[in-house]
Parts: sequence; C-alpha cells; structure tokens
Amino acid sequence: MTKLIVLDDTVLGRNILGAFTEEEIVPFESLKFSDGELCVELKAPVRGDDVVLVSSICEPVNENLVKVLIALDAIKRASPKSITLITPYLGYSRQDRRVKAWQPISARLIADLLQTAGINRIITCDLHASQIEGFYSIPIDNIPILQILGNRWRKARPNDFDLSKLVVVSPDAGGVTRARAFMNEAKIPNMAAIFKYREKPNEVATMQVIGDVKGKTVIIIDDIVDTGGTLVKSSSELKKLGAEKVYVYCTHGVLSGNAIEKITNAESIDKLFITNTIDKTSQIIGDKIGYIDISDILIGLINTFKNGGYISELIKDFLTEE
Amino acid sequence: MTKLIVLDDTVLGRNILGAFTEEEIVPFESLKFSDGELCVELKAPVRGDDVVLVSSICEPVNENLVKVLIALDAIKRASPKSITLITPYLGYSRQDRRVKAWQPISARLIADLLQTAGINRIITCDLHASQIEGFYSIPIDNIPILQILGNRWRKARPNDFDLSKLVVVSPDAGGVTRARAFMNEAKIPNMAAIFKYREKPNEVATMQVIGDVKGKTVIIIDDIVDTGGTLVKSSSELKKLGAEKVYVYCTHGVLSGNAIEKITNAESIDKLFITNTIDKTSQIIGDKIGYIDISDILIGLINTFKNGGYISELIKDFLTEE
Amino acid sequence: MTKLIVLDDTVLGRNILGAFTEEEIVPFESLKFSDGELCVELKAPVRGDDVVLVSSICEPVNENLVKVLIALDAIKRASPKSITLITPYLGYSRQDRRVKAWQPISARLIADLLQTAGINRIITCDLHASQIEGFYSIPIDNIPILQILGNRWRKARPNDFDLSKLVVVSPDAGGVTRARAFMNEAKIPNMAAIFKYREKPNEVATMQVIGDVKGKTVIIIDDIVDTGGTLVKSSSELKKLGAEKVYVYCTHGVLSGNAIEKITNAESIDKLFITNTIDKTSQIIGDKIGYIDISDILIGLINTFKNGGYISELIKDFLTEE
Amino acid sequence: MTKLIVLDDTVLGRNILGAFTEEEIVPFESLKFSDGELCVELKAPVRGDDVVLVSSICEPVNENLVKVLIALDAIKRASPKSITLITPYLGYSRQDRRVKAWQPISARLIADLLQTAGINRIITCDLHASQIEGFYSIPIDNIPILQILGNRWRKARPNDFDLSKLVVVSPDAGGVTRARAFMNEAKIPNMAAIFKYREKPNEVATMQVIGDVKGKTVIIIDDIVDTGGTLVKSSSELKKLGAEKVYVYCTHGVLSGNAIEKITNAESIDKLFITNTIDKTSQIIGDKIGYIDISDILIGLINTFKNGGYISELIKDFLTEE
Amino acid sequence: MTKLIVLDDTVLGRNILGAFTEEEIVPFESLKFSDGELCVELKAPVRGDDVVLVSSICEPVNENLVKVLIALDAIKRASPKSITLITPYLGYSRQDRRVKAWQPISARLIADLLQTAGINRIITCDLHASQIEGFYSIPIDNIPILQILGNRWRKARPNDFDLSKLVVVSPDAGGVTRARAFMNEAKIPNMAAIFKYREKPNEVATMQVIGDVKGKTVIIIDDIVDTGGTLVKSSSELKKLGAEKVYVYCTHGVLSGNAIEKITNAESIDKLFITNTIDKTSQIIGDKIGYIDISDILIGLINTFKNGGYISELIKDFLTEE
Amino acid sequence: MTKLIVLDDTVLGRNILGAFTEEEIVPFESLKFSDGELCVELKAPVRGDDVVLVSSICEPVNENLVKVLIALDAIKRASPKSITLITPYLGYSRQDRRVKAWQPISARLIADLLQTAGINRIITCDLHASQIEGFYSIPIDNIPILQILGNRWRKARPNDFDLSKLVVVSPDAGGVTRARAFMNEAKIPNMAAIFKYREKPNEVATMQVIGDVKGKTVIIIDDIVDTGGTLVKSSSELKKLGAEKVYVYCTHGVLSGNAIEKITNAESIDKLFITNTIDKTSQIIGDKIGYIDISDILIGLINTFKNGGYISELIKDFLTEE
Repeated sequence: MTKLIVLDDTVLGRNILGAFTEEEIVPFESLKFSDGELCVELKAPVRGDDVVLVSSICEPVNENLVKVLIALDAIKRASPKSITLITPYLGYSRQDRRVKAWQPISARLIADLLQTAGINRIITCDLHASQIEGFYSIPIDNIPILQILGNRWRKARPNDFDLSKLVVVSPDAGGVTRARAFMNEAKIPNMAAIFKYREKPNEVATMQVIGDVKGKTVIIIDDIVDTGGTLVKSSSELKKLGAEKVYVYCTHGVLSGNAIEKITNAESIDKLFITNTIDKTSQIIGDKIGYIDISDILIGLINTFKNGGYISELIKDFLTEE
Repeated sequence: MTKLIVLDDTVLGRNILGAFTEEEIVPFESLKFSDGELCVELKAPVRGDDVVLVSSICEPVNENLVKVLIALDAIKRASPKSITLITPYLGYSRQDRRVKAWQPISARLIADLLQTAGINRIITCDLHASQIEGFYSIPIDNIPILQILGNRWRKARPNDFDLSKLVVVSPDAGGVTRARAFMNEAKIPNMAAIFKYREKPNEVATMQVIGDVKGKTVIIIDDIVDTGGTLVKSSSELKKLGAEKVYVYCTHGVLSGNAIEKITNAESIDKLFITNTIDKTSQIIGDKIGYIDISDILIGLINTFKNGGYISELIKDFLTEE
Repeated sequence: MTKLIVLDDTVLGRNILGAFTEEEIVPFESLKFSDGELCVELKAPVRGDDVVLVSSICEPVNENLVKVLIALDAIKRASPKSITLITPYLGYSRQDRRVKAWQPISARLIADLLQTAGINRIITCDLHASQIEGFYSIPIDNIPILQILGNRWRKARPNDFDLSKLVVVSPDAGGVTRARAFMNEAKIPNMAAIFKYREKPNEVATMQVIGDVKGKTVIIIDDIVDTGGTLVKSSSELKKLGAEKVYVYCTHGVLSGNAIEKITNAESIDKLFITNTIDKTSQIIGDKIGYIDISDILIGLINTFKNGGYISELIKDFLTEE
Repeated sequence: MTKLIVLDDTVLGRNILGAFTEEEIVPFESLKFSDGELCVELKAPVRGDDVVLVSSICEPVNENLVKVLIALDAIKRASPKSITLITPYLGYSRQDRRVKAWQPISARLIADLLQTAGINRIITCDLHASQIEGFYSIPIDNIPILQILGNRWRKARPNDFDLSKLVVVSPDAGGVTRARAFMNEAKIPNMAAIFKYREKPNEVATMQVIGDVKGKTVIIIDDIVDTGGTLVKSSSELKKLGAEKVYVYCTHGVLSGNAIEKITNAESIDKLFITNTIDKTSQIIGDKIGYIDISDILIGLINTFKNGGYISELIKDFLTEE
Repeated sequence: MTKLIVLDDTVLGRNILGAFTEEEIVPFESLKFSDGELCVELKAPVRGDDVVLVSSICEPVNENLVKVLIALDAIKRASPKSITLITPYLGYSRQDRRVKAWQPISARLIADLLQTAGINRIITCDLHASQIEGFYSIPIDNIPILQILGNRWRKARPNDFDLSKLVVVSPDAGGVTRARAFMNEAKIPNMAAIFKYREKPNEVATMQVIGDVKGKTVIIIDDIVDTGGTLVKSSSELKKLGAEKVYVYCTHGVLSGNAIEKITNAESIDKLFITNTIDKTSQIIGDKIGYIDISDILIGLINTFKNGGYISELIKDFLTEE
Repeated sequence: MTKLIVLDDTVLGRNILGAFTEEEIVPFESLKFSDGELCVELKAPVRGDDVVLVSSICEPVNENLVKVLIALDAIKRASPKSITLITPYLGYSRQDRRVKAWQPISARLIADLLQTAGINRIITCDLHASQIEGFYSIPIDNIPILQILGNRWRKARPNDFDLSKLVVVSPDAGGVTRARAFMNEAKIPNMAAIFKYREKPNEVATMQVIGDVKGKTVIIIDDIVDTGGTLVKSSSELKKLGAEKVYVYCTHGVLSGNAIEKITNAESIDKLFITNTIDKTSQIIGDKIGYIDISDILIGLINTFKNGGYISELIKDFLTEE
C-alpha cells in the first residue's frame, strides 16, 4: 500500500494531504528539543508499505536537510517496502561542481547522505543541472514544471491572442533547454537568450542579449530566483533594449535576503510568477509576485505510484494538446 | 604530515591553533550564502596528509552537523591520506535507542553520515553511552575527560585536605562508571548515587538517593547539563537530605533554553564546572558557572598523532600519580 | 508466499512447525562433516518467497552462529524475495560495549556478519540493551516477552488476589524499564530495585536494595540468567531484608556451567520461570525451574507476516485489557 | 615507492616511460586471445607501491575500457598501496546526463566501474563537464591542458606580437570558462562566443556569434574535436562574418569517421592543433593538423607523486609569468 | 509485470521475442557513435517491472560486455523492480583463477562489474567451472544445457537403438561431471575420459585416454569449442585408438580464428553439434557443424519468471522420463 | 611497524613467536565465558601498525572461525594501519561450489565474513582450489608449501639417489598441477595420476590409475588428508598395481574421526608426512605419520612484510637451485 508522509506544514503540503484518505496518510510528531536536536516519530505503521515522503530541502536548509535524514531513519527502521522522497526543491543543487580546487561538491554529498539514510528513489522538480541525476545511483525523476506551465499557459490564453509580440528569454546559457521546452509547449514562436559569465555564486555577471526583444513582451524562464539581483539586472537590460513588458516564470522562489523587496520595487519586472515548491505565502504581500500552486502535479504523481502507473505517461497527460 | 583544520572560532579552537605551526594549519574559508547554504573551501593542500578536523557538533546543532559534513567532502576530494574527526561534543548522542517503535536512532544515523562523508577515525569526549562506539565501524576513541579532571583535582588540592567530608554523586544509574572513574582518580573514598526513571528526554523524573550525604560536601559528576532542570532538582534533593555543599562537574555544558539563569539562581547548587567542549564564553556572566579549558588535552592528542604515539599512553600520562 | 525454516529441533521449533502447513515449511538437511564443518541444504525452493528462518544463537553459541550464517548463504543463493531471521535468543548481546580499550564489540560484529550473510530483517526477544538496535542498519524488532508475560500473569490470577503484598524487583539499574513494563501489565503497584556495580562479565558485584521488600512477595524480572551467581546473591540479599518469597521471571535461561544445580539448591529462590527461547528441556529436572512456552507468540508473529499485518498490532493484541 | 605502468604503445606513452628508471617501470604483457578476450600480466611486483596506471580510454573505446579494468584487477590483486589512473582522455564523458528518459548516464557508469575495479584516485585532462567530478567519490584531478597551452603560447610568441587582432572564441556556451582560461593565460584581450543549441550528440546545431570577429585572427578553443562537423560549420560561420584566419586548439583529437579528411579540406580552418591525449600519429598526414606533445606535463605529474609534492603547485609552476 | 529486453539480433533472440506479446517486450534503440561509444535507449517504461535482459557476452566480447553494462545502467535508472540478466554465454569465464602471480581474475571482475551496473540475478548456461557461482553474491542459475540435450537425444532415438557401441567421452578432467550428466540422461552405459595438462590457455596439451573406445561410436561432451585445436587433437587420438565415429556436443561454439575451417577439414571429427548460445549462423556453411536451437529452454525460463514458477521445476520438466 | 598476534598456542605458533622481539609481539588474553561466548583482548596498542594475525581455521573449526572474527573486530577498532591474516589452513575451502541447488557456497561466505570483520590481505597455504582466490576482492597469497617441500627434498637427498624408481602421484584430477610443481622441484622425472569421481564430500569414489607404478616407489602429493579413507584406498590400489613403497606428502593434516588410527594401521601406506598448518602433536604417536615444521616459511613471510620485501622474491628464494 502507498503511504504518505508530508513533513512540511505548507500550502503545498496541506493540499497534497487533502487529496488522500486518512488511511493513506501516516501522521507523525516532529519534535525540536531545547538544544536544537530534532526527532521525528511516526504515529502509524508503514511495514511493507511503499512510503512517499514529501519535503522540500529549502530554508532553513540545514535544519530541513537533517529533519529529512532523521525522518528517513525512522521510516527505514519501520520496515517499509520502499521509500520515495519527493523533494519539490532540492537544496544545495547549485553546488554541483568545484569552481576551484579544495571545494566540496555538496550536491553529490547530499545525494550520498540521502541514500545512506535510506531512500530508494527520488523525485524533484526542474533540477538545476541535469548532470545531478548522475550523482544518484538510484532512480531519479525530474518533473519539468516549467514545461507543464507552458502547456497550461497555452490552454488558458484566449484563442485570438497575438503571439507575434511574445519572446521567451533564457537568462543564461544553461537555461536554454528549459526555456525552449516552455516555448514549445506554449506555442510561442520567438526566443532570445542572455549570455553571461559569473565568477562566484550570488554575484551578478556581465550580460549580452542575443535575439530581438525591441517592442516585445518578454517572458523570462528560469529555475531559481534567489537574491533577485541577477533577475533585476537582466530585466533592466531587456527593457533598455526596448522590451515593453517583462514577465518572469521561475519554478523555485528561494527569495533570500531582501529579494522580495528588491523585486517588488524593480520597475523593469512587470510580474514574477513562482510556484510553491518553496512556501513563501507568509512573506509575499501585494501582487507583484504571483503564486502558482503545483499541488495537482504532485498529487497526480503520488496517485501514479498508488495505481502502478508510469510517470512518463503522467507527464504526457499534463502536456496534451487539448 | 599531520594537518589541522579547526572549524570553530572558539576559545578551544584558538588555543589549539596556537599550539601548532603555520605549516601544520590548513586555513579555510567558510561561506554562508544568503539562502542559508554553507560552503567550506580549504586554502592549502592536504594531499597525502593525515588531516585532523576539529569541530564540536553542538548548537546550532544541525547547522554544525551539515558544516562538518561539507568540510569532510571538501577534504576527502583533496586526496588526504586519512581524516580524523575530533568532535569534543558529539550531538545527537542521547538519541541512541528507540523509546517507542517508529522512532529514529539518530546517533546511529550521525555515525553513518559521518562515515559516508569520509571520516576514517573519530575522537570524542565522555560519550553519553559507551554502546555508541558500536554504531561506528571505524576506530573511535572516547577521551575520559572527567577522569582526567579527577586526577587534576587531586594534584591541585592541599596535601592536608580533609577527604572524609567528600562524597562523589552520580546523578543517575548510567553515570556510575563515570563517577567512579572520577572518584578513583581524585582519591575520594565515598560515593552516592541518585536513582531515577525518566519517561521522555528533557523531562525530570522521580529520584531516590542511595548512600549517605548528610553533612557532606557533594560533588556531582555528569556528562551533559542541558536544560539544567534535572540538575537543580537533584541538588535540591541532596540539600534536603542534609548535604552542606553541592558542586557539579559536567563535561558538556549544552545549557539550552534558560539553563544558565536557572542554575545561577539555584540555591541548591554551589558551583557548576563545565569544560569548553561547547563554547559558552559569551553567555556566561558571574562566577556561579566555572569554565575548565581542556585545550591541553586535545593538543596532546593531536601531538600524539603527529609523533606516531599511542592515545592510550597519552591518557595514562594524564592520569599519573604525581 | 511466506516460507518457514526452523533450524533447531527443540520444543519451540516443533511447536512452531506444527502451526504451519507442509507447503509453508521448507525442509532441509543439516550436515556436520567429520572435521566439524557444517552444511545446510534446503529441500524445497524458496525463489520469490519471504523466508522466515527461526534459530536461537545460543550454546553451543559459535556452532549455532556459523550454522545460521551458512543457512543464510544457502537461502540467499536460492533467490528469495526477503529473509527474516527470528532469533529468540541473540547470543553475544552482552558484549555491546568496550569495558577497556582493545576489546571487540562483538554484538556489533554479529550484526555485521548476519547482514553480510543476507538477512533483511531481524526479530529477537527482550534484547539485553536497546542500543543494540542501533548496531543494525536493517529493521529490527524486539518482542517484549516479559511485558506479555506480565499481561498473562494478570489474566491468570484470581480476581481477589491481594496485590499489596507483591513487589516487582529489577536486579540492576539497566533492567528498570523492563521490570516496570512487567509491573504495569501485571497491575502490581510496588517496585524495588537492586543497584550494583560489576567490574567484569560473569562476576558478582556489590549490591544495594532500593525500596521496601520486608514481608513482601518479591518477583524479580530479568532478561538473562546465565551462571546464576548474581541471581542467588540478589535473592539472598532480598531474603535477608525480609522478603518472604522470591520468584524470578527471566526470558532467557542460558543456565551455563552448574547454574541449574546452583539455583535448584538455593533456598533464597522459591521458583525461577524461564521461557523456551533457549531449549533446556533435557537438562531440567524437578520443579524449581518452570518452563514457559512462547511458541504462540512466535507463531502469531509469523502469521502476521503471512497475512501482511503489523507486529505493533500483534503486540497490542497480546497486551489487551481483557 | 611510485611504480609506473603505461598500457598504450603511443608517442605519449613512450615519452613518459623514457623519463623514468627501469626500477620504476612495471613491465607487463598484454594478451588478446583468439576469441577477443584480453588479459594483462604484470612482470614485476607492486606490493606496497603507489601504482600509477597510464591509459587513455579512447577508440577502440570499449576495448580500451575493458583493458584498463582488467589491468586494474591484476594490479589490485598484487597488493599495491594505492592505484592512480592517469587517463589523458576519459571516454564516455559526453554521456553525462540523460537527454530523454530511459537513457543511461554512461559517464557515471564508467566512474562506478573504475572504482569497482580498484582505483583510488583518477587524473584526467580537460574534462568535458566539471560536474563529472561529482560522479566520483574518490579524489579526481582535472589538468587544465588548454590553460597551460595558453601560458606556453604567450611565452613562445614574439614580444612585439600585435595582440589587438586576436580574438579567442568559445564554440559553445559550455566552453566559455575553458576559453577564458586560455585567453587569460595567453594575455589575449578579446573574446567571442558561438551560441548554439544541439538536439542530439554528433548533430550540428544552429549557431549565432556573439562578439566582433571581423578582420580578426580567431583562435577557437575546445575540449574535443570528434567528427569535425561542428568545427567546420563554426569556422565557416566565423569566416562569413569576416574573420581573416581561424586557428583551433583542441585538447582531445577524437577525429572519428572521416574527420581528418573533412578538416584537411576545410578552407575555413587555417590550422587545427590537437594534443596527444589520443594518439593519431599514424593517421595524420600533411600539416593542416598540428600535434602538441603534453608528455612533459604528465611526467611532471608523476614526479609530483614520486616526490610527495602537490599537483596544485605543479600546475601553478606551469602557469608562471616568466 | 515481467518485461523482456533482447539485446542481440540473432536467431535465438528473434525466437525468444516471437514467444512474447508486444506488451511484454521493451523495444530499444542501440546507438554506436562514430567514435565507437555505445548508447542504449529504452522505448517503453519498465518502472516497477521485473526486467529480463537477454544478451550473450560473446565476440566481439568487450563491445558486448560494455553494451550490456550500459543497457543495465539505462534499465536501473528507469526504476524497475528487479533486473535479471540471461546471458547464454558468459565471456571471460575461463579466466577464473590466476595461473601465475600478478594476473587478473577476470571472471570475478566481470561478476563485480555486472553487479555494480545493477543486476539482481544472473542466469547462464553450462558455466565453465561451478566455482564461478561463488564469484557472485547474488543468485545465479546455471542451466545444464548438455544434460537437457542428453534427455532429448534419448527421446529422439529409435527404441531399438544399440547403446552398447556408444561411449561418452569427457575431453578433460574438469568435464567429467558434465559428461556424466549427459550420459545418465541419454542412458548411455559407457564412459571414457581424456586426461590432459595444459600450460597456457589456447595451447594444446599432452593427452591420455582412460577407458575403452576401440570399435566404438564416441560422443565427446564439452562446454566450449574455441580455436578447435584441442578438439581436433582429441578426436584424432580417439580415432587412433580405434574409435569408429567421433561425434561432439558442445554448448558454446566460440569458434574463434579459423576454427570452422579446421573442424570442417578434420577427418577425425564426424560431426560437431553446437547450440545457439553464440550466433554463428552467418559463418557456418555445409553440414559438418550442426546447430541446436535452445530457444525453447530460454522461453520456458522466462515464462517461469512470468508465472512465478521455480526454475528447478522447469529443469525437472525438461528432464522427464517420457 | 609490523606487529604480530598469534592466536593459537601450537608448535607453529610458538616457533613463530620465538623469531620476533617482545616489542613486535602483541600479547592478548583470550576468554571463553561459561556460556561459550569468546572474547579477545589485546594487551598492547596497534594504532598505526601493520598487524599480522596468525591463526589456522581448523577444528574446532566454527569455534576458531568465530575467534578469528572477534579478534579481527578488536584489532580493527584499535586503529591499525592494516590487518593481514595468515591462516595456514583455511577451513571450509572444500565447500567452494554447489553440488546441488539450494546449497551454500561456504568458502565464499567465509571470504565475505573475514572481509566484513576487517582483513585487508590474506595469506594461506596450498589452497584447495585456485578459484577460491576469486572469492576475495582483497589481495590473497597462496604459499605453495608442497612445491617448497619438493625443493627441500631434492636438496636433502644423497647426490647419487636413484630417481628412476620414483613416481609422483596425484590422487585426483584437481591435484595434478600441485603434484607437478612438487615433481619439478624435486627433479623426479615420472608422474602418475589417479582419476576418480566422487558424488559427495567425504565419500570414496571409483578410481583408475594412469601411468606406470609397477615396482616403483610412489610419492602421493595432496593438499588435505581428512578422514583418511580415500588415501588408504588410493594407496591400496597403487600397491595392487605393484607399487613397492607408498609415501604421502600432505600439506594439511585434518585427520578427522579415526583417521590417525586408520592410517597407522594401513599396510599400503609406508609413511605419511604432514605439515603443522594444523597442530596434531598431541594426537600423533609412533612414527607412521611424520611432522614437517613450516615455521621458517611463515617467519620468512612475516619478515618480508617487516622489511618491505616481496613475497614472490621470498618464494623464489625458497625454490633456489642450490
């Protein structure tokens, strides 16, 4: 039987829980002792079950990482048939290579830690680099959220919408495949890209725009918006080059530091859409930043496990023409 | 060559660093990005070296645990000959068994995570339960700090000190061996013990004192003082039974929540001595809580590695008669 | 399908076999060559089955340990779906920590050997220390036999039984939780404990009784009775303090050396009850030592596997009010 | 002692062997049976030695991969202290992620196979993607050959060379860091990049040039030249945009199919320089393709091991100002 | 569900595929890039399925080995329930021990590589030495093809066939068990053996015949015919000793080098029968070498998996009396 | 530093200990508790040392196996640099393959257990089958005792000894290589072999002698003499065929059951020589069975480790011409 454990009390978490029966949900108690140590205790058996654990590894990222590891240990010792981790946002994924010698490759370390703690399969959304799949020796699925959003955008728009004014923009070289997937699903004909070179993480780089954005409505497609600095700079650049409107679709709204303020105040950004892989509900005020709920995608995913279906079929369903 | 990396900027850490040459110390940069992710970068090579990494896994315990794991990944990828972790305080050690079904055994999980990240040997101080050694498949050394303090206490006291008024007290059944080790080294002839039964961690239990404490100067010996609740209750009980003075020696001063305040205000406690396995310097005011520096023990330990000696010999040296 | 292999030809083994159909039982041939080497050959296929192997690791303990390991190798190579070891008595559990440096931690070694040989899960009874669960990285269940016996004792006694004269006694500090579990199930209101300190295994220690036993009927609760020396000394001490009767419940009757004779002759012990986790039928004469058959508990356990139930539910069933 | 085994009879291999004494070289016999099975037999002991095995995993790539694995097994069983694989060209590195579901990640597989066969460390040159370092859990060094060539180019050119006409070009987005490293070392001030999008490996993509190449002498910097198709197309594009000369520096000359012919005939390419990480000596005629010997770099590397030095220092030496 | 992947386009492969439904077969694309690197891509999902991969590891043996490993990686990453490799001919099995120091044990290496790549079970035919089973820590089945052929031979012959003229011959000491199995099934009463001593693989040794072959029809039973040299020499020897006819049954027709020509021209061999564990259809002309199709055995095997039966029962079925 | 632990108090053990200094020997205490559990405690540190543990795994074979495993655990936890097991006789080596389905491969199991317990290298003498080397993934050395004895025999015999009357006999097909090695070293020109087929271990088989033994002095060369049954039958057969004298050299004198009596009474055996890989000193009376001390070979071996030499060189030294 498929059993569900949702670690985080978030909008996404509550929506997912609401889609399953009481029998399918494993309640648990999460403790934090006064010295900061965490403990997770399951309140129902999982022996022989296919356990699905849902938790983003987002800020407070180290706290959440350790919590997931401890929860996995508790589950593993309770004799489940298998453990699947659905982690909509997989922290530390940007540390996927060494920029200099004597650095860690933390994304690989996380992969090893999760496998040590007992996961048999992992599912995440819009992974920062596809090579990270190779850091795992267990099956990993990478749900193409932005591609699905492209499909939904197309279905939602009026039939007589003028597509010729639209340009999809990838904010860097690594994101071209991701942007193109959105563009194809959304049936938007034009694409541009920003090409940049960054010395250190979190630092903004010099940028050059390829493709024509003058007089166009631009849709920037990216996986992560963190401090917001790069995004503000990119959109400024696009506006300088004549873009009329700049909309942004980002899967993961890390929005660290004063990112929300920075983006809210940025004139160059007309609107930023993020999904709820990371929960920011309590922090977002006003309508400059829009929230897209992806619960139905994750619920579909868990139902696929439950019914023995294939994820590839599920994704195909999300990407149908009509 | 033996190379030293000290992760924490504490009194203990600075003292240790001061005992070694610049060539023996590997400088490093510790970064925390605005989204909370950590990174550690070594600033000197360790290829072919026996690396000693010093870091307590204390509050903020999850932050520190992840920091140690990431540092280990960076070291491991830099081709050292071996990695020894000296962790004066090893967090999560009290989660060494399941009180109920469906709980984790976090102390074992920590053991697996550290080994996955690359340690070849681990050294810690006054481990909460000696069975935890069995959670590791690599060599582990457990430095008997309290036993060494017992030895030092004896050497420091006046020759004509009246020992007959002293009683060493173990605050629970599990600590008898530890208290006896102190007692033997200190040459204190009398011992008593408090016997208690505790339902949950951090909760105080019913207690009964075995042995005579009336009119005596009591020295409580324990490994960890956390919230301070049990300690205050134990010392109250001892004073009610006629103890004249209650001194406490604890290796690890976790002192979470308002423990410092609670202990400072407790009339039943005459003085608490803790060591600096956990750094509390900035928080301790007044002289109710005394600080014992164990840097020399750890420096001795690292020198033992450097010179190819044996830890057992070193400990014997610390426990000599004269 | 659940398939059963019972290695030992004991009362317990025969009772278990009697509860299952021929199709569910895998016959086997156990050979001992003239040079002492063992071999086990299965006489029916187990491909795709959930195999349950039942065998205590008791005296001759090394012979039995190797036999279990070899049987596991034979099973593992026959393509089962999973292997569960039910070992009512898990030898070497008392070697769970190092008393001195340079000793083994044999209980961890046994855990590693069994996992190397192929077990996926292990079930045992009244484990010597709960930390041993952490020596395993696979699921482990520890059946609380004494707790179940407490429940049965209550149901079996006359309704008007005078409980006020009864005291449950834990013979050492480590056994308090175990004794309390019995006490709670038996609805016996009073408890006492013996507090002792032992230098080496098998050696008797100095002891002190906490709690009132004068004029009482004492029930000592312990996990293992080995040479019997400690037990005789404890009961003598209790009688000296005025206990009227001393009954003993021990899960595992190791009864090594001349233990049976020693206990039979001990005036301080009125009766010792052991279970058949270790088979001593041929050696026990007279009625000083009583035998409690726990076959029904293990049969219930195996039926739980067979029917996809939960062990936690099963244990709850054994501990019902009525 | 450091012992050297060079599997391939190539220019590079012979040069390396020539730099070491007979005692440091382990002779071996490489057999190929008539059914195609390979065998490698060492002709001298390596017990207790730090063995360095040198072999590119290049065409015939599967043959060479299996040969390296078998050689590793022979070495591992001969009790060496450690095994370091120096593989100037590490085949299968371009299969570092899944373009579609249900594909392998062969670069990770290769990492696992080499580690299974017994390597403790791996050194390679100009790795295709730096994330591949994360596929290994052992130390890996990635020698920046092109950066060293940039340094050498600068030292070799006349002092009054006119640098203003030069432009370094990265042929794709992933190569920018690599090209920049060359540019910085060569002290060439200008850079351009070709931006392209490729559906499948070996297939040429649409391309757009960023930066000014009109009237310039272009130096394309790339890690691998395989079929030559992309290179010919890129250089054509550059010439169309007004580039006067197009020179190419590529670390690895895979040159599969009719690549040599294609490049030799391409008017858009003025000269291609490759290194001898892959041996093509027998196939290259004429002077359209130039050969750069990197033996001295690898010899320096092995001497670093021999003398207990640091690779980072060695590389710094290769990149000195003077 | 059981899903089938047949890597090789051979008679055996096509026959197996013909026995299963489209839904049970996983189509795949096998690519070979121009630089010799292989890639395998599945064209249907296998999530949750018991995948059976069929492929001989025969010439080109290194190419096929790597192809199988890459296919396993692709399958493993697609979340199957289990992977069973059916490899009718398992190359490198003759390298099962070190004849001299400093050689590899390639058959063990292959076992480790296959397990690293992800197989959970392996099935092969007439393994060269039964000890090779011990190189695997996963279940391995060794289908006794020659024994089954002996059974079929008996059922196919006329009832009044004169068996007294027949002698089964083992061509070396290692093959006696194999020959006896054939003899018993075929109900042939007489056996002889050739005893020889071979210095190196592929080299012919001195030989001595035990048992009477004069005037007899000899049936040589062997597992592998490689270069054919030994076989020609053995049959010559038998004819010299008066054997009237020499027939040969060999499971695996490696037939390397000019083996086919050599055997076709050998007057001492009347006919050689090989099975199609290795596909030689395109190379065999004339009727000196006969081909025995074993598809039905492998199809039976896969159906056994499908239906949850036991291989032991299947083999018993193939060896029935009638 | 090389440190020596000799587990067994045997002639061989005492001889080896006598060759090393007190500083090189690690004393230990071996305990057997009254319930049969073993414990081993080292009495000196081994931190950083290359530990050599010497112990045969012979009868009582299971007791000795567990003792070795526990000793390894104690050593491993004491932080040695490496652990080498010298086990002159490696029990369970004859269980190296499955004769029928559903049996174990105990020799592989032993390999896994020893590696789990912590050995890094293993050295044994005249291994039963050379394929067993492939059961280990660590380096293994197989000392050719009989070959060395052949060399010694030659050097010891008078110069004018008549070799033409001598025949070396292998008692079965598997021993031919072993016998030939003895023969070559002893410079004995003639060889014969007994060819037999055995259904089960310990059961005698039908036998046929190849080669001429009439009027000859026969030297049987074998690795193990266990129950002695086969040996008596073989020698009878040889005497029946006219052998004048039958001498036997066996490395390992298992001599189980009444083997000593059986051999002593056997008229067909003139004398049996065994080595002291297994200690039988207390059981052997009279001079029918001769004892060859191999201490000097093992001492040479350990000195080789100590001095960083090569075992291959050592063996070559033992096999010199003069």
